[in-house]
Amino acid sequence: MEKQIRIAVAGAQGRMGQEVVKMLGEDQELVYTGALDTRVSDEEIERQLAEMKPDVLVDFTTPHTVYRHMELCLRHNVRPVVGTTGLTPEQLEDLTARYKEAGLGAIIAPNFAIGAILCMKFAAMAAKYMPHVEIIELHHDKKLDAPSGTALKTAEMIAAVRENMKQGHPEEKETIAGARGADYDGFRIHSVRLPGMVAHQEVLFGATGQTLSIRHDSINRESFMPGVNMAIKAVMNLNQLVYGLEHLID
Amino acid sequence: MEKQIRIAVAGAQGRMGQEVVKMLGEDQELVYTGALDTRVSDEEIERQLAEMKPDVLVDFTTPHTVYRHMELCLRHNVRPVVGTTGLTPEQLEDLTARYKEAGLGAIIAPNFAIGAILCMKFAAMAAKYMPHVEIIELHHDKKLDAPSGTALKTAEMIAAVRENMKQGHPEEKETIAGARGADYDGFRIHSVRLPGMVAHQEVLFGATGQTLSIRHDSINRESFMPGVNMAIKAVMNLNQLVYGLEHLID
Amino acid sequence: MEKQIRIAVAGAQGRMGQEVVKMLGEDQELVYTGALDTRVSDEEIERQLAEMKPDVLVDFTTPHTVYRHMELCLRHNVRPVVGTTGLTPEQLEDLTARYKEAGLGAIIAPNFAIGAILCMKFAAMAAKYMPHVEIIELHHDKKLDAPSGTALKTAEMIAAVRENMKQGHPEEKETIAGARGADYDGFRIHSVRLPGMVAHQEVLFGATGQTLSIRHDSINRESFMPGVNMAIKAVMNLNQLVYGLEHLID
Amino acid sequence: MEKQIRIAVAGAQGRMGQEVVKMLGEDQELVYTGALDTRVSDEEIERQLAEMKPDVLVDFTTPHTVYRHMELCLRHNVRPVVGTTGLTPEQLEDLTARYKEAGLGAIIAPNFAIGAILCMKFAAMAAKYMPHVEIIELHHDKKLDAPSGTALKTAEMIAAVRENMKQGHPEEKETIAGARGADYDGFRIHSVRLPGMVAHQEVLFGATGQTLSIRHDSINRESFMPGVNMAIKAVMNLNQLVYGLEHLID
Repeated sequence: MEKQIRIAVAGAQGRMGQEVVKMLGEDQELVYTGALDTRVSDEEIERQLAEMKPDVLVDFTTPHTVYRHMELCLRHNVRPVVGTTGLTPEQLEDLTARYKEAGLGAIIAPNFAIGAILCMKFAAMAAKYMPHVEIIELHHDKKLDAPSGTALKTAEMIAAVRENMKQGHPEEKETIAGARGADYDGFRIHSVRLPGMVAHQEVLFGATGQTLSIRHDSINRESFMPGVNMAIKAVMNLNQLVYGLEHLID
Repeated sequence: MEKQIRIAVAGAQGRMGQEVVKMLGEDQELVYTGALDTRVSDEEIERQLAEMKPDVLVDFTTPHTVYRHMELCLRHNVRPVVGTTGLTPEQLEDLTARYKEAGLGAIIAPNFAIGAILCMKFAAMAAKYMPHVEIIELHHDKKLDAPSGTALKTAEMIAAVRENMKQGHPEEKETIAGARGADYDGFRIHSVRLPGMVAHQEVLFGATGQTLSIRHDSINRESFMPGVNMAIKAVMNLNQLVYGLEHLID
Repeated sequence: MEKQIRIAVAGAQGRMGQEVVKMLGEDQELVYTGALDTRVSDEEIERQLAEMKPDVLVDFTTPHTVYRHMELCLRHNVRPVVGTTGLTPEQLEDLTARYKEAGLGAIIAPNFAIGAILCMKFAAMAAKYMPHVEIIELHHDKKLDAPSGTALKTAEMIAAVRENMKQGHPEEKETIAGARGADYDGFRIHSVRLPGMVAHQEVLFGATGQTLSIRHDSINRESFMPGVNMAIKAVMNLNQLVYGLEHLID
Repeated sequence: MEKQIRIAVAGAQGRMGQEVVKMLGEDQELVYTGALDTRVSDEEIERQLAEMKPDVLVDFTTPHTVYRHMELCLRHNVRPVVGTTGLTPEQLEDLTARYKEAGLGAIIAPNFAIGAILCMKFAAMAAKYMPHVEIIELHHDKKLDAPSGTALKTAEMIAAVRENMKQGHPEEKETIAGARGADYDGFRIHSVRLPGMVAHQEVLFGATGQTLSIRHDSINRESFMPGVNMAIKAVMNLNQLVYGLEHLID
């Protein structure tokens, strides 16, 4: 049998934490060593790590605590798998340098939905060969901002590789303002908001005589678990910090 | 065997006319009596009608000629099936009155794509029960105006029956202008323009825990023929002028 | 203000019952008179009805109890709105006759997802004009039977109005058995089973140069509530038993 | 200005050849040196090549002539871009060896629709991370075989990387044979055939709480031109024979 991976969970009582613990119980390669109680002194946290001897710490707590936990992980040779978007660029830079020096693996990702990561990655790949693109993102109607963060991230990744141009007919006109959507670097993003939707995104590419579309549908929080599972296994083979799950996919 | 229907075609050399003639040849219920040459005097046209004795005249010529042809049809008891959007309200009113008086069937329709008609009709029906709706229309990138005429017509039909309200979160905000699309009576229309598209429309409805979508895809001019075929058969049972294919569908 | 409707709920502690009670609380036209405890003698149930004086009884209990409840409702002039597929044809026939005689409204429906009802109804309407059709239904991979009950019901409704024919090329052949799906009266049904799916159905129609698709996506049990709400309001205007929500839609 | 690429076309009068010539005329980087008449002796063909001095020969003729042309190209240092599926494994092996020895670029591809290539490539990538997959392919109803060649090729690419398993509930049962589609190595392929369709394929992946779908729609022969254009530019930088456009995409 393959060697098992030992995992501690910070924030195990939180909504994400509970899902993680459940997921760990369903994979025989993974051993849950217990919840890491982090509402205590650094010394006390270190005592827990020394006792549980986890290989990996899964951490879905807050940006502030995450930074501190990652410092403690370094001292105990524990590889962190972290879900947060809140670290400052300085913090990220600092952690990146220190994990590299230590030769220790770490993963931080703003999004663990493996399908969303693939959707973004494929979109960026396709844009090189089919530069005519539009994004449609669809969410529940309680959402405040449009376009969604994921759509903006996708657009950014596309813009980085796409041949620069303004799409659509040069003389096209909107008879009602907004019909053609939001302009991002020459291509369009459309935001649909309806009850019954959760979180969906479709990236549409067009070329002579053909279209290609890549769509991701997410219906609940459990959708992050396959990504967390993959990250736990991947982090064991890393010797530095990786930011974003897309870098684990080839 | 059922009685066959005899059909003359005005504009038989035009692009639509050629498709019509081809379609007539493929349906044994229909007999093509020949092209009606209309670039001649009224007397000459009437002579042709008297000779060919058609039951129906299919006419995809110009608004001006259409009006004249419909007057001549009245005198020869020929039922017209006409594809045009160009008649004035006065002309329409006048023809409606005269066909009613004569008890003669006639059909005028701006759109003969049966799937598009069904898409619009179903959208209007659904809006009564699922009032949260958005329209996405997708066309080739040579199209000048956004939203499309079909999308506007669909929106008008929806607005006529939909509970009046402003959709989306009351405090939603666009971080890039236009993301939420064109506002039509409180709901949104999005226009996608890409090479490789032809003419497509999706009407999306959302309610608690569910969504319903109705989509029409059209890829060429032949798509009008099933609608013309249906109109030819339907006009034989009418005793007045009907405007719009949607009124033939129950 | 419009007159309010008084509603009692049988099985109020069940999963559906709880959703119903929640929904009643969110609509000012509706008044929840309380849970009907039905694990008691007929006399005791009648005593509760006499006391609560509901206009409507919503009942998502078992087929056996439903029949008994509907008999008691008759005696107390209470209109039942019932979700079950389990009544026998004889029971249905008997109840239909007795409600008709009493001139009392009642609704029994196997499916209260308004979007699913619309999907089926539109599919049956479209099949008259676009007889080439295939059904794709997609569900989670814990589902045992294929095709789904909803797909079979949809197919039945389509077959009842569709021009009889065998679709596809007369000489088409499967190089792997099953590729062309299940044959239902000359058209095909395809069943997809994947994790991440809940309950989805797409009905695809094709004609020369165009396609029309009608799709319903359901992600949870709450999706039945708009249909229950509609049925409560509709049953007040009925004077007989109606089976199936599709008959309330025009 | 970048150096232009000189292109000769074999089969320039054929349907594909005509599209190629049209495409060459729309890209300023490309120069059309003329049609290569190949219904003549080898000497005569070589004379034409010597005169036109093309960098690239685009060849959509028959398997038999293609092989001969590729031999002549070797002698004149002309890089072939060839669309055919008909070469024997021996011929392919022989050409591969000889082009490698000569250090000359060549591309042979069964499919030049860039969107279809991307669809297949992404499907194979996704299957590593989301092993639950089904394929739906949709074509016009004149097509004889099911599943389509593209679906089988996609399935083969998926199977090569996907974790081996049988999908669906172990006890699932078809109440109508074929509902669950064709079984390919434990996952399913569904073939839809309808008028109004051209050539479409959707690859669906499911994982906990999410789905990912990759869809390609092709509506005409022009859809191959962006792929031919890309191949012409890519072959200039190759020093061996590459089979399949997917190997040019990173």
